[in-house]
Amino acid sequence: METIYLDWAATSPMEPDIATQMAQMYVHTYGNPSSAHSIGREAREILEKSRKLCSSLLKVEAEQLVFTSGGTEANTIPLLSLLRKTPTGEIVLSSIEHSAVYELGSLFRNLGYHVKEVSPDTDGIIRPEAVRKKLSPKTIAVAVMHVNNEIGSIQPIQEIAREVRSFENENSCRIHFHCDAVQALAKIPVYPEVLGADSLAFSGHKFRGPKGTGLLYTRKKIIPLSSGGGQEFSMRPGTENIPGIWAFCESLKQRTHQMEKEYSHACELRDTLWEQVKEIEGVEFFPAQRGALDSASELSYSPYIIALSLAPVPGEVCARVLNDRGISIGTGSACSSNREKKRGRVIYSITSDEEIARGIIRISFGPTTTKSDIEAFSYSLKQEIKLLRKTVRHRSL
Amino acid sequence: METIYLDWAATSPMEPDIATQMAQMYVHTYGNPSSAHSIGREAREILEKSRKLCSSLLKVEAEQLVFTSGGTEANTIPLLSLLRKTPTGEIVLSSIEHSAVYELGSLFRNLGYHVKEVSPDTDGIIRPEAVRKKLSPKTIAVAVMHVNNEIGSIQPIQEIAREVRSFENENSCRIHFHCDAVQALAKIPVYPEVLGADSLAFSGHKFRGPKGTGLLYTRKKIIPLSSGGGQEFSMRPGTENIPGIWAFCESLKQRTHQMEKEYSHACELRDTLWEQVKEIEGVEFFPAQRGALDSASELSYSPYIIALSLAPVPGEVCARVLNDRGISIGTGSACSSNREKKRGRVIYSITSDEEIARGIIRISFGPTTTKSDIEAFSYSLKQEIKLLRKTVRHRSL
Repeated sequence: METIYLDWAATSPMEPDIATQMAQMYVHTYGNPSSAHSIGREAREILEKSRKLCSSLLKVEAEQLVFTSGGTEANTIPLLSLLRKTPTGEIVLSSIEHSAVYELGSLFRNLGYHVKEVSPDTDGIIRPEAVRKKLSPKTIAVAVMHVNNEIGSIQPIQEIAREVRSFENENSCRIHFHCDAVQALAKIPVYPEVLGADSLAFSGHKFRGPKGTGLLYTRKKIIPLSSGGGQEFSMRPGTENIPGIWAFCESLKQRTHQMEKEYSHACELRDTLWEQVKEIEGVEFFPAQRGALDSASELSYSPYIIALSLAPVPGEVCARVLNDRGISIGTGSACSSNREKKRGRVIYSITSDEEIARGIIRISFGPTTTKSDIEAFSYSLKQEIKLLRKTVRHRSL
Repeated sequence: METIYLDWAATSPMEPDIATQMAQMYVHTYGNPSSAHSIGREAREILEKSRKLCSSLLKVEAEQLVFTSGGTEANTIPLLSLLRKTPTGEIVLSSIEHSAVYELGSLFRNLGYHVKEVSPDTDGIIRPEAVRKKLSPKTIAVAVMHVNNEIGSIQPIQEIAREVRSFENENSCRIHFHCDAVQALAKIPVYPEVLGADSLAFSGHKFRGPKGTGLLYTRKKIIPLSSGGGQEFSMRPGTENIPGIWAFCESLKQRTHQMEKEYSHACELRDTLWEQVKEIEGVEFFPAQRGALDSASELSYSPYIIALSLAPVPGEVCARVLNDRGISIGTGSACSSNREKKRGRVIYSITSDEEIARGIIRISFGPTTTKSDIEAFSYSLKQEIKLLRKTVRHRSL
């Protein structure tokens, strides 16, 4: 049975030609860029060409880009660097951050910092004014993600940056504004200078690059916790994964060049999904504001990630039933291995209705997702949901 | 011109068949192990099979193994976890640690910990008694590497662990003993339980695995600085690089199965090298004790990494000249991108003679290195060294 994969927000397959070339590189272009000889130089040249390519795609300086082992590390480096700056202070986080960032909040709390959370409105969007209200002259950092990985809401990063900057000016303080843009890159336009954050984190495997690769943009040089062998401008130590870095950049190039086309395609898939599921009683886009499908909604939500509420049917049960039919969908974030415990934080930031929260599934698209995949999903959902509802009702009697 | 690669301690090429299978996996077996559906489950199964394979090769429990993004991260996780344990204390490091570990020493110093260094004897070996002398009831951690990456000396980890344990018992304290075994794994027998360290760090690309992969052994669970999404028993957050992990383990299996044969081969290459270079006046093994080639030396030095002293000819000049002849050799550690600054720390731990220190080159072997590679190297060295000596003498007049 051919699987229909509708969980691209969790991870994505590499393009075969890039994977093949990458494999060749692991065998033949294996130098360590820190070696002075020709084989090392060859590796160094690939590294710098790759960095140059990324810098032109993101419209930043090459020196502002640091290759990492993934999104988590790209999020971790700038935030942990705060430990070297000051032993106390306040940190403002959104309550819908990916656990890669959110768990750093717990660390900072443990270490004696004061961590404040900003919740989104019921539409899943963090308001710049809400961030502003949490700032104080003791604030050392703010972290708000770009595209939420569970519900697809796009946070107004540019406006939040503006609030942070104006607060800095008025209070003569310095705040590091970090943005986890893992679900944004290669899907919607991401230009660090336009967004105005001090650092941005990206991950390769979310846009068909290899797992184990990521990228950190930093406006200014960061002093990380450890700089080890001094690689990546002393910001990310360890022998550079040259073939992985090359493949990250090639994948980013491919996606960026097709971004507009792929974005339109994702919008069509989303519309198809909406057309199909609105016929199913009780199935709704989540948050409900997404159902409007107007131009405001267009700007506020990524078409690639769609949460549906199936309450009172639990999302996990539905996902399991669809999986038996060969359809892979998500239930909240996959990037957490302790699903039971961590699930729900993002959803509960938006609704306090437990039944709705438990009834969420996530559908996410990629460039090879087809309209017929969506139709197959909707068909199966229609078929199964009635029986699932009956079972749930029966149990609750 | 075919290059003769004698810098395997810096990095190594992957085996073509493993690289090809890995590429296939990036395309076809792309699931996120944290996803509940079949595609995620498939990835999870590969992850656990790989861990099981590694655990049987190292003779440890699967739960004691954490896949990382490389040797640096595997060194960093256990040492940075100390920051969560206690805000002060003493840390004992060998002065010949790789910068991945050594630079963490600088961090701890900056954060107010007391960092003590243990130097090796002139033979490049850290004596267990010397480590013992640095311990105090305030010691929270000790880090001594296994095989030194610049001169190949093998540290007596088992004996050092014994000293640490006996000190702990006598002083009712608890010391974390970490060992960077990056240059040991797959080259000499590495069994964590025999060695007795609390944690060991390994890197894939040093034994023909992919760059960007590493492994951390921890005797007991560690509470790391951040556990993000909770992957790898909450010790290393971030979506697991399944194809990379698989290739790491397959490469380790291949090397381990051929370890004895490859070790003998490396000894033959070393002997050939010795036979050839001892005819060149003034060229010596470094440290000089290695020249003995007796059974004590056999146990104390890895045959894979050999430092030669060419003083008064600077190692870098010689490396450049050999590079022009298509021979790639190392000059100290390649795993440092700021070569000028960092070079020499290890060598100066052993000799205070500047001319000797500057005259060091590093030859390192891999499974595909041949006797004729060594002969070509020796021939070129013989040809060039006379002229280089003359030039150096001329300049110093």
